Amino acid sequence: MKYLHTMVRVSDLEASLDFYIKTLGLVEHSRQEVESGRFTLVFLHAPGDQAAMIELTYNWDESGYSSGRNFGHIAYQVDNIYIFCQQLLDQGVIINRPPRDGHMAFIKSPDGISIELIQKGESLPLQEPWLSMTNEGTW
Amino acid sequence: MKYLHTMVRVSDLEASLDFYIKTLGLVEHSRQEVESGRFTLVFLHAPGDQAAMIELTYNWDESGYSSGRNFGHIAYQVDNIYIFCQQLLDQGVIINRPPRDGHMAFIKSPDGISIELIQKGESLPLQEPWLSMTNEGTW
Repeated sequence: MKYLHTMVRVSDLEASLDFYIKTLGLVEHSRQEVESGRFTLVFLHAPGDQAAMIELTYNWDESGYSSGRNFGHIAYQVDNIYIFCQQLLDQGVIINRPPRDGHMAFIKSPDGISIELIQKGESLPLQEPWLSMTNEGTW
Repeated sequence: MKYLHTMVRVSDLEASLDFYIKTLGLVEHSRQEVESGRFTLVFLHAPGDQAAMIELTYNWDESGYSSGRNFGHIAYQVDNIYIFCQQLLDQGVIINRPPRDGHMAFIKSPDGISIELIQKGESLPLQEPWLSMTNEGTW
């Protein structure tokens, strides 16, 4: 038995690929356009790790997806959470929960999917500007 | 960068462990009870695969979690989808989408998290009783 992927629905495929690939840094593994069913599936994995993926489902005629409380978030490990979050800020991404503790941060996808970023190994030493950065919105 | 886990919130920890461990066959990796925050975290992985996990968050004072459309499902590969689904039926689990095609099935957790089961490798030959089994509910 093996964890394969987590599927999320996306309202705008281009905006979502911008987020998951350009912003978050994931890599497109494969894509399937199903004209008859009017949907597109895109599988994405972290660079250097194809063990588990995200499947984006883009239904051509559906958008405006609701969020629920039963799903929490998807978590990725990153090599340096400060460098990673600085790159997010440079791209104008809102960091809902900044890595004040050198360990953990949260951002959100265009459709409100919460993404947790976790520092690989030990937490980094506390440092500004992260230490004083406040939360924004929910995650 | 690495996919670590997907977090879902659970209303009833015992019922959820029954589902994810006894029914689905996952293995408990670690557990953290945080008295001060009144929550319990349980990490679960597929047998033989610790690459990506599910994190169950049990908030002691919260239950009745809503579902949203932005989250779709979590997918696991299984060695034999007919044997796997028969074991589910024997335990009284409702298979919302039976593996009519020898390839794919869907069930739901107690909190409405949709779980996709996918046959490893090639689809199995079509066969009864699966071929005639109808869908039940949503997934």
